[in-house]
Amino acid sequence: MGNDSEQGTRRTAVTHRSVLRLRDGRSRAEADGVAVEEPLEVRVDGDTLAVTMRTPGEDVDLALGLLFAEGIIAGAADVGSAAHCGRLGEEGHGNVIEVRSAAGRRIDPERLLEGRRFVVTTSACGVCGRRSIDDLVRRCGAVEAPARLAAEAVAACIRRMAEMQPGFARTGGLHAAAIFAADETLCSAAEDVGRHNAVDKAVGALVRRGAIGRARPGSPVAAGPAPILLAVSGRASFEIVQKAAMARLPFVASVSAPSSLAVDLAERAGVSLVCFVRDGQLTVYANAWRLDGALQPETGTPHPA
Amino acid sequence: MGNDSEQGTRRTAVTHRSVLRLRDGRSRAEADGVAVEEPLEVRVDGDTLAVTMRTPGEDVDLALGLLFAEGIIAGAADVGSAAHCGRLGEEGHGNVIEVRSAAGRRIDPERLLEGRRFVVTTSACGVCGRRSIDDLVRRCGAVEAPARLAAEAVAACIRRMAEMQPGFARTGGLHAAAIFAADETLCSAAEDVGRHNAVDKAVGALVRRGAIGRARPGSPVAAGPAPILLAVSGRASFEIVQKAAMARLPFVASVSAPSSLAVDLAERAGVSLVCFVRDGQLTVYANAWRLDGALQPETGTPHPA
Repeated sequence: MGNDSEQGTRRTAVTHRSVLRLRDGRSRAEADGVAVEEPLEVRVDGDTLAVTMRTPGEDVDLALGLLFAEGIIAGAADVGSAAHCGRLGEEGHGNVIEVRSAAGRRIDPERLLEGRRFVVTTSACGVCGRRSIDDLVRRCGAVEAPARLAAEAVAACIRRMAEMQPGFARTGGLHAAAIFAADETLCSAAEDVGRHNAVDKAVGALVRRGAIGRARPGSPVAAGPAPILLAVSGRASFEIVQKAAMARLPFVASVSAPSSLAVDLAERAGVSLVCFVRDGQLTVYANAWRLDGALQPETGTPHPA
Repeated sequence: MGNDSEQGTRRTAVTHRSVLRLRDGRSRAEADGVAVEEPLEVRVDGDTLAVTMRTPGEDVDLALGLLFAEGIIAGAADVGSAAHCGRLGEEGHGNVIEVRSAAGRRIDPERLLEGRRFVVTTSACGVCGRRSIDDLVRRCGAVEAPARLAAEAVAACIRRMAEMQPGFARTGGLHAAAIFAADETLCSAAEDVGRHNAVDKAVGALVRRGAIGRARPGSPVAAGPAPILLAVSGRASFEIVQKAAMARLPFVASVSAPSSLAVDLAERAGVSLVCFVRDGQLTVYANAWRLDGALQPETGTPHPA
């Protein structure tokens, strides 16, 4: 574990299929770029923890990001090794990541956040969004970073992410996630058929390098400015904000819409949630105090409900 | 189980949050419509089977559609009752659906399709998309319906779905799914924060009415023309095509892109997969023979890979 070469079998994110394109009443056979979707199994010390449909590539980062988001690892310090298992050339090779505990540590899948399974069952009846939020904030605490950003910087990060979507440009079928520092430096970026996977890959790359979470003892201090903003091409749901809160990122910016539970979690977890960042506009759904230029609303309408 | 009134607590799909909207360097406090996201727990005969983040509403249909897509129920005939549990007014009420087996039947969650868990593990190494497809087709067989549609009819269904997205219009944060008959009659439609949930709700409504799957003995024959096309507002991934194949729907139409595994499953499962249905165009990724007007490509380019 620890360097980029250990991402293992690096495979293409885009493949081709024969299609028939219909336009203006005429059909034309073509080859079309299609986003690759394959299952990935994540094993921890030999046991299967999760299987997710993902786009191959950066599989180690995906596994580390997933384990970190769920509170199963506190950082690279908990991980001895993470690599593809099996023999090259075998069918399915490259579709399993085996994560091993570091010497003297024991990665415990029982630490799986209940927020992941969304099963906060009571003796009475069932699950509840408010309790999912309470539980998550109790476990990870609120993000209290005093970081601030100009609204224009948030928009610039989203634009940079959009420029770095080669797979989307060829297929229209990949989501992107990117993490930036306060000076708009790119810290990491990823594309995937799954919104959640793209975020796990981007966070996992920084976990691997020790820039997020508990670094390995004796490893060099992560170079570069601190990551503070998670940008996503898709919608901002509960789980996306959860991943940012666990990674202590004070900003989440989305091209698209948030859900109610994402807004409520962001508010409680101290995350500034900025959505619909496009067309020279943006909308702040939680913790607007971190957005410079968003502090003095010139007019206001009362909340209807 | 069996009638619309039993969807239980019907709650709103859209709520409001106070936001700060920034435009042209000016900020304005407003109330914004936001898609509701809450956890739903699905229990079968008392045991928790799954928890999914969904938009409240049509919860019984969501549960039935999910169980049907996973091969756990063969239709309404297997279900004795399906309803929210708990007491009205309790926190979390409306977030648990309890499904009970019909008399003389036993719903067995062990029938959960391995395709769902994507865990088709071998003694060697791991999961594999091709094997996931093999497994699914072996279980449900290929869709062999000789149904045909004009390309224009597919586009018309997508347009109709787009017109029926009141929640999306207010929030930008809801996905839609709709099922149509060959004459473009709407059979069912749903919106949800989750792409998969929207499909489960649309399919589940037809399972509940006995129009898909094994109907309850003695129940009236489902009225109306047979459902043949699943339309989705989001991307067409493996799981979306899986849900259509299980429901024996010969057409899947999407506004957006497919994944490689969705194309491969559609090809093998006999599903005609039509994507990027917008702007007067569409692209057929699998089983183009069912598309009238798509049979005689006027030109062709060789497949590059």
